[in-house]
Amino acid sequence: MHPTLLTAASAAPLTKTTATTIAERLFATRRHSIALAAPLTSEDMVVQAMEDASPTKWHLAHVTWFFENFVLKPHLDGYQTFDENFNYCFNSYYEALGPRHPRPRRGLLTRPSAERIFAYRAHVDEALEMLLASEQGQSEDLARLIEIGINHEQQHQELLLTDILALFAASPLKPAYQASPSNVDVSQPEPLRWIEYEGGIHRIGHASNDYCWDNERPQHDALVHPFKLADRLVTNAEWLEFIADGGYATASLWLADGWTTVNREDWQAPLYWEKSDAGWFQMSLHGLLPVVPAEPVAHVSYFEADAFARWAGKRLPTEFEWEMAALEASARHDQPANHFRPQRAKDANLQTPRQLFGDVWQWTSSAYLPYPGYRPPAGAIGEYNGKFMISQQVLRGASCVTPAGHSRPTYRNFFYPHQRWQFVGLRLASEAR
Amino acid sequence: MHPTLLTAASAAPLTKTTATTIAERLFATRRHSIALAAPLTSEDMVVQAMEDASPTKWHLAHVTWFFENFVLKPHLDGYQTFDENFNYCFNSYYEALGPRHPRPRRGLLTRPSAERIFAYRAHVDEALEMLLASEQGQSEDLARLIEIGINHEQQHQELLLTDILALFAASPLKPAYQASPSNVDVSQPEPLRWIEYEGGIHRIGHASNDYCWDNERPQHDALVHPFKLADRLVTNAEWLEFIADGGYATASLWLADGWTTVNREDWQAPLYWEKSDAGWFQMSLHGLLPVVPAEPVAHVSYFEADAFARWAGKRLPTEFEWEMAALEASARHDQPANHFRPQRAKDANLQTPRQLFGDVWQWTSSAYLPYPGYRPPAGAIGEYNGKFMISQQVLRGASCVTPAGHSRPTYRNFFYPHQRWQFVGLRLASEAR
Amino acid sequence: MHPTLLTAASAAPLTKTTATTIAERLFATRRHSIALAAPLTSEDMVVQAMEDASPTKWHLAHVTWFFENFVLKPHLDGYQTFDENFNYCFNSYYEALGPRHPRPRRGLLTRPSAERIFAYRAHVDEALEMLLASEQGQSEDLARLIEIGINHEQQHQELLLTDILALFAASPLKPAYQASPSNVDVSQPEPLRWIEYEGGIHRIGHASNDYCWDNERPQHDALVHPFKLADRLVTNAEWLEFIADGGYATASLWLADGWTTVNREDWQAPLYWEKSDAGWFQMSLHGLLPVVPAEPVAHVSYFEADAFARWAGKRLPTEFEWEMAALEASARHDQPANHFRPQRAKDANLQTPRQLFGDVWQWTSSAYLPYPGYRPPAGAIGEYNGKFMISQQVLRGASCVTPAGHSRPTYRNFFYPHQRWQFVGLRLASEAR
Amino acid sequence: MHPTLLTAASAAPLTKTTATTIAERLFATRRHSIALAAPLTSEDMVVQAMEDASPTKWHLAHVTWFFENFVLKPHLDGYQTFDENFNYCFNSYYEALGPRHPRPRRGLLTRPSAERIFAYRAHVDEALEMLLASEQGQSEDLARLIEIGINHEQQHQELLLTDILALFAASPLKPAYQASPSNVDVSQPEPLRWIEYEGGIHRIGHASNDYCWDNERPQHDALVHPFKLADRLVTNAEWLEFIADGGYATASLWLADGWTTVNREDWQAPLYWEKSDAGWFQMSLHGLLPVVPAEPVAHVSYFEADAFARWAGKRLPTEFEWEMAALEASARHDQPANHFRPQRAKDANLQTPRQLFGDVWQWTSSAYLPYPGYRPPAGAIGEYNGKFMISQQVLRGASCVTPAGHSRPTYRNFFYPHQRWQFVGLRLASEAR
Repeated sequence: MHPTLLTAASAAPLTKTTATTIAERLFATRRHSIALAAPLTSEDMVVQAMEDASPTKWHLAHVTWFFENFVLKPHLDGYQTFDENFNYCFNSYYEALGPRHPRPRRGLLTRPSAERIFAYRAHVDEALEMLLASEQGQSEDLARLIEIGINHEQQHQELLLTDILALFAASPLKPAYQASPSNVDVSQPEPLRWIEYEGGIHRIGHASNDYCWDNERPQHDALVHPFKLADRLVTNAEWLEFIADGGYATASLWLADGWTTVNREDWQAPLYWEKSDAGWFQMSLHGLLPVVPAEPVAHVSYFEADAFARWAGKRLPTEFEWEMAALEASARHDQPANHFRPQRAKDANLQTPRQLFGDVWQWTSSAYLPYPGYRPPAGAIGEYNGKFMISQQVLRGASCVTPAGHSRPTYRNFFYPHQRWQFVGLRLASEAR
Repeated sequence: MHPTLLTAASAAPLTKTTATTIAERLFATRRHSIALAAPLTSEDMVVQAMEDASPTKWHLAHVTWFFENFVLKPHLDGYQTFDENFNYCFNSYYEALGPRHPRPRRGLLTRPSAERIFAYRAHVDEALEMLLASEQGQSEDLARLIEIGINHEQQHQELLLTDILALFAASPLKPAYQASPSNVDVSQPEPLRWIEYEGGIHRIGHASNDYCWDNERPQHDALVHPFKLADRLVTNAEWLEFIADGGYATASLWLADGWTTVNREDWQAPLYWEKSDAGWFQMSLHGLLPVVPAEPVAHVSYFEADAFARWAGKRLPTEFEWEMAALEASARHDQPANHFRPQRAKDANLQTPRQLFGDVWQWTSSAYLPYPGYRPPAGAIGEYNGKFMISQQVLRGASCVTPAGHSRPTYRNFFYPHQRWQFVGLRLASEAR
Repeated sequence: MHPTLLTAASAAPLTKTTATTIAERLFATRRHSIALAAPLTSEDMVVQAMEDASPTKWHLAHVTWFFENFVLKPHLDGYQTFDENFNYCFNSYYEALGPRHPRPRRGLLTRPSAERIFAYRAHVDEALEMLLASEQGQSEDLARLIEIGINHEQQHQELLLTDILALFAASPLKPAYQASPSNVDVSQPEPLRWIEYEGGIHRIGHASNDYCWDNERPQHDALVHPFKLADRLVTNAEWLEFIADGGYATASLWLADGWTTVNREDWQAPLYWEKSDAGWFQMSLHGLLPVVPAEPVAHVSYFEADAFARWAGKRLPTEFEWEMAALEASARHDQPANHFRPQRAKDANLQTPRQLFGDVWQWTSSAYLPYPGYRPPAGAIGEYNGKFMISQQVLRGASCVTPAGHSRPTYRNFFYPHQRWQFVGLRLASEAR
Repeated sequence: MHPTLLTAASAAPLTKTTATTIAERLFATRRHSIALAAPLTSEDMVVQAMEDASPTKWHLAHVTWFFENFVLKPHLDGYQTFDENFNYCFNSYYEALGPRHPRPRRGLLTRPSAERIFAYRAHVDEALEMLLASEQGQSEDLARLIEIGINHEQQHQELLLTDILALFAASPLKPAYQASPSNVDVSQPEPLRWIEYEGGIHRIGHASNDYCWDNERPQHDALVHPFKLADRLVTNAEWLEFIADGGYATASLWLADGWTTVNREDWQAPLYWEKSDAGWFQMSLHGLLPVVPAEPVAHVSYFEADAFARWAGKRLPTEFEWEMAALEASARHDQPANHFRPQRAKDANLQTPRQLFGDVWQWTSSAYLPYPGYRPPAGAIGEYNGKFMISQQVLRGASCVTPAGHSRPTYRNFFYPHQRWQFVGLRLASEAR
C-alpha cells in the first residue's frame, strides 16, 4: 500500500483521555521507528534497492516531514523549520506541495546523513512534546491529525522492513537483519480445512470511531453469495507441489498478462527463492534459510496466487468474503514484536480461519475500487488513496512486518498484480457448492 | 475486446428452423466481411497500424481459419485443408493450438496475398455450404459451433474498422474509408438530463437461450444502490470545455497512473484530434473533419473518462447500473449499416437513456472480473475470456462500428485503462442522494 | 550506406558527349528500378520490414522526389508538381527541407498506392525527357545534378533488394524474390592464399573526373605498412568451423560491445541462417536454401567479422590497405544482372585478390571518418555524408545487389558495427611478418 | 577510460633502485586513495550515481582485490585471503576470473561496510610490505606487476573523483567535496593563438622503458599533414557564445547521432550546468559555482565538441597531431595535489600549446583503434584495452583529477561520443592552409 495521508473519517469527539493516549502512542510509534533502524548501518540506510522501494533514511525523514509540515508548521507558534531543503527532499508524491526529489532517485541522497536525519527526528519530537503539553495541543482536530501521522508512520515502518529485505536480498553476502529463529519446525503442514459461510446482505466497511483510512468507507451493504474459505494460508509445501507439477510452465493456468510476465521475467518460484544442490532456500530478514514446508508461502504476485488457485481447482476470495469471515472471527492477531517471518498455522479449531493477521497479506480477487458513495476527502491535508484506484488488486489481513495495532478486518491494502516484494501470500476459497 | 471463441453457454435445444436461420446468418456474416473490405486496396489490407491492431487481411483470414479449424476439420469428412501454412499464420493466441506467427509481426505477412485470402474464404465457404446441406450438418452441436463462429467474425468486423481507422489516421494523406456525411448538424447539444433508479437486488447477466459469451454468465443476484444516470453520452462540446478548463493539465483530476500517462504521452485531447488554425479536427472513417459539438466524444481512455467525470463532479456508472438501466429501457439500437460515426442524441423522452447502443462503447467504473461462480468452459474449442480478467475495465453498449445483431444489455467488452483506439466514450452517473 | 545527395566533387568540364550519355544512363537507371520491383506484389512494396529498412514503394518514390525537387523544380520552367503531399511523404532526412514523415513509420503509407507511385515516376520521367531535350537541359551543372540523381537511385536499388530480403525473411512462407539457381557447386572451397604488399606512402581517395561521393575526397597521401591480404573472401565453410569451435560462446574472441550484443540478441550464426534437422539453411533472395560451403559468408556484423578474424589469428584490413590492393588489381567486377547471391571464388591467379566487387561488402578495421582536409560541400543540394561520420565502420567493395556501374576502388560504404541486414562479409588480412 | 590491467610492454631490466622506488610509489599511491576518500561519509562511499559510475567503496576494494589476486595470491607464500566473497563482489569485468556482481548493481553492496573495506586495504598493504621485504619480492616480474597495480589504482583514483561529482551533482543539496577556491579570476580569456606544425612522417606511440598501457604500442611511423593547433583550450566564455548563437538548436552543426542525442536528452548546455536568474552555474567538486569565463569548458560530449568546432569553422585535432605537438612541447604538467578544477590558461609563449595536461581531457577526431601491429598481451593477467576498441573516440592529455605522475604525451584515453561525466573538454585545430 502506498502510505497516504488522510483525514480520519470519524467525526465523533475525542475525550481528554484519548488525547493523552495519543501522545503516548505517538512517541511509542516514533521510538519504534528508531528501534527498527537499529540493526542497520548508515550505509544500509541510504541505498534504494529498486524503484518500488525507498531507503530507510528516506522513510525515517519522510514521516518526520509529515509531522513538521501538517502538525507543527500550522499549529505550533514559533516553530523553527529544521532545514528548508527537506521539503524538496522528503515530500513523497503530494502534487499540491510543490516540486520534489524524484522517487527513483531517493537513493542518491547521501546527504543529509543518517545522523542528521536522527537529529531532525529529535528536533521534531521535541516540538511535538512542546505542542502536546500546550493549550493549543488539546484540540480534537490536532488529535486527529496526529492519529493520521501515527498511522502514516506505521505504514512506513512496514515498508522500511520490506525494502530492507529487498536490499539485503540483492547482496551477494545475504546479510540477516535479525538473528535466525531456533527450533524451526520442519514437519509437513496439517491438512487444510474448509469453513462454510451463508450468503446474504452484509455490512462492509468501517463504521466505528476508531481510526481508519478513507478507502474503508463508507460502510455499505453488499450481497455476498454462499462460499467456503480455507482455514489457513497456502504453505510452502503446497507451493513446492505446484512447482513440481510444472505450474510455472503451464500456460493454461495463467492469466494472459501473468503468462507474459512469467516468461519475460523467467519466474520459476516465489521472489527470494533460490535453488541449490541442497534444495530450495529463501532469503528472509533472518538471512538465507531453507524453505520451511508448513510456513505460509510469501512474496508471490497476484498472477502466481491466481494461477495456484486455478491449479488447485479453487479460487481466491473476494475482499467482502474475507472481511465477513474476519468479522465473524472477531480476529485481530498482533504478532509478537521482533518476529519478522510468517509462522505455521497453529491451533486448528474448525470454526474460524487462522492466520488472518500477522503472517502475510492475502491477495483477493477484488480489484481496488472505491466503495459506493466514496469521495476522496477534500481539504488541506493532501492527496488520497483514491488516486491509486485502478489496475491494482486488494489484499486483506496484515503481515509479520505490519506494526502492532495497525491491522483490522476492514483494512484494504493494494498492489499491482505483478508486485511481490511485500510479504504477500494467499488463502483459497471456493463456491459453497 | 479480444475476440475469443467460447462454447455458447446455452444448453437449450436448437430447432430445425434455427439451423436454417443459422446458415443464412452465417453466409450473411461472411459476405458482410467481404463488403467491409471493399473500399480498401490490397496495400491497405496488409499493413499493421500498431501492435494493438491487426491487418484487414489477417482479420479476414483468421476468422476463416476459425471455421476451418473448429468446424470443417472435425465435422466435414474429406475436407481438404486449404494451405497447411495457414495454421501458423492465422492462429491468434490459442496456446493449445501450437506455435503461431507473433502478434506484433502480423503486418509482415505480405504473402499470402489478399487475393489468396479471398480464395481461402471462398474455399471455406463452399465447404461450409456442403457441410450445412449434409446430414452431419444438422446437429445442434454444430449449430452451436457455427453460432460461435458468426459472433467471432462479427467481433473481427468491428476490429477491422477500428484498425483501419488507426492506419488511416497514421497517414499524412488522411484518407477516408467512406464518403463524408452531408448535412451535419453543428448546433450545440441539448442539456443533459438525469434519470433516477431505485436500488435493490437485481438479476445481472445473461439468461436466455440467445447467444452470449461466457463472461456474461452465470446470471446472478447483485445489490445495486440507488443512482442517477445521464440520459445521453458526453459530447464533444463538453469535452472542449474540459480542455479549455485545463483538464489535461490538472493533476488533481487524474488517477496517478493516468497522470503519468498523460505526461509521458503528452495527451492534450482525445486520440485522433488535431488542432489547427481553423479549430479542432478529428480523424474518422470519413476522413479528417471538424469536431462536431453535439456528437459523442470518442477515442478517450478510461483515464480520460474518469478524469472528466471527476471534473464534472460526477462519476462513471458501474457495469451493473448500466445493465439494469439498459434492461429497463428494453434497448437495442442497431445502427444503420454503413454509418461509421457516433451520432448526436435524438428524441429525448425523459424516461429512458438514449445512445445505449450504436454510438460508442461506454467506460464503466467496474473492473473486468469473473461473475460469481464463473468457470471458463472446459473442452476442445479453445481459450477463454477468463484469461483477460485482470487490469482491464468493463465497457458496455456497442459502437457505430459494431455489426448489427451483435449488441445486447448484458454484453461485456473490456480494455486496458490507457487504450483509446476503439470507438469508446462515456456516460455520466452519480449517487441518487 | 545511407544514400545521400552530394555535389559531385569533380570540377572538370563535361563534354556534350557526356551529356548524351547521361540521358541514356539516367533512363536506363530509372527503368532498372522498375524492373527490380517487377517480381513484387503491391503488398510486398508497402511494408517496412524493420526500422532500418524502407518499403520498396518508398524507395521508388523517394528517388523520384529527388529528381523532382533538385532537378525539375529549379530547372524546368513550368514544371507541375505531381502532388504537394509528396514532399512530406518522401523526404528522407534533409533537415533543411522541412518536416517529413518519420522514418520508422514509412510502412504505414498504404496511400499513395504503388500504382500512383508508378504514375509519379512516369510523370517525372516525362518531364526529365523534356528537360534534357531542351536548351536548359544542356548545362554542365544540370548534368552534374543528374549524375548525382543516378548514383542516388542506384544506392536505393541496392537498399530495395536488401530490404526485400529482410521482409521475406520475416515471413513464415519464406518467399523467393527470384528463382533458385541451378547446378550449385557444393564442393568445399579451395584453400585461401595470401598476397603480400609492400608498405609506403600511397595516394588514397578519388582523383579522376568520374563520379564519386564527397567522402572519397580529397585525395591524399597515406602511409601504409607492409601487409598481407587474403586472395578471397571468408566462406561459409570457414564460418561453420567458427561456429563448431564455439566462436559465438567464447568471450575472449569478442569486443566488449560485441559480446554484449551476442548475448542480448542470442546470436548463434549469421543473420538469416536457420538450423534444422537437415543442417544449416540460409534465407536469400532465392528463398530458403542450404548453406553452400564455398560461397562467401554474408550478413555478418562487424562484431562477428572481428571475432572471426581474432579466432583465425588474423585481422581485418584497413580501408587503405583494401583500396591499395584494389587499385593494383585494376579491379572492377560488375556482377551479371539478375544474380543476387554471392558466388564462390573463381580463377585463382596468385597475384591479385579475387571477389573484390560483386559478392559482399567487406568490413574494414577503419572507422568511418573524414579524410584530411574534408569539408562537407556547401550549398543548396542538401545534407551530407559527413553527418554520419561517427561510430560506424567502413566497408569496401560492392555486393551482389550493388547495381552495375556503381562500384570502384575508392568507394566508402559504412554501417554500425551491429548491423547485418546488408550483404556484408569479410576478407582477412595480417601483418606482413 | 576503463581501467584495465595489462602487462607492461617494456622488456628492459629493472634495477634494484627501481624496485625500492616502486615500493615507495606503491604505498604512496595506496595512501593517496585513502586521502581521496577522507572528505566522504560512509554513505557517500556506498551509492552508485549512475550505471557508468561506481561507488567509492567499490573503487577502494577493487584496486585492492587486484593486488590480492594478481600479486599476493600467486607470489606470497602462505598469504591468507581476506574474504572469499570479495572475488565475486569486486571483480570488474574479467570474464576469465569467474562470475561477478553485475556492474549496474554495485551500489547495492551496503555490506561489506566501508570500515571493512579499509580493514581489507590494511590487510593487503601489510602483506605487500611483507612481500616486498622478502626474497621473492625482488624479482623484476613482480616489480612489473606492481607497476601495473599502481597505474591501475591511479586510474581508479581519477574515476573515484569523477563518480563522486556525478553523485553530488544528483543531490539537491549540491554538496562540495572540497572548499571553494578563493580569488577566482573572472576576467575574460585572452584571445586564442594558433601554432603551426609541419607535416611529415612522425614516430607515434610509446617507446621508452617507462610504464605505458598496451594501447600506446607498438611505436610506429605515421604520416601527419601540416596543421595548426590552438594554444589553449576552448573556454566557458566561448561556449556561452555557442549557446547564445543557438548552437544546441542548429541541426546543421551536429553529427546525425549527436542531433538525435541532443533532442532525446534535451541538452542545452554542458553536463552540470544550470541556469538560474543569476546566470549560469556549474556543479563542481567545490559545489555549485558560477561559470567562470576563462576556465576551460568541461563535461562536454564528443558530439558537443564536434559541433562546437564546426560552429567555429575549425575541427578537432587527430590524436597523432596532438601527440606530436605534446612531444615537441616536452610537456608534462602535473597539477598541484588537491586542486580539482580546470584552470585558466597561463603564460602564453606563442611557441607551445598550453593546458596539455592537468585541466581537461581533450577529445580528438580519432576513433579508438589499435595501432598497426597491436596484439593484446597474451597470458594470465587479464583482459585488455583491446576489447574496447570500437565506437569510441580517443582523448588526449590529462585532467585536473588525474593523479600526479599519471600523464604522458602518448596516453590514450577513450570514451563513447555521448559520454560527458568525465572532466573532458576540447582544443581546436585546423588545416595549415
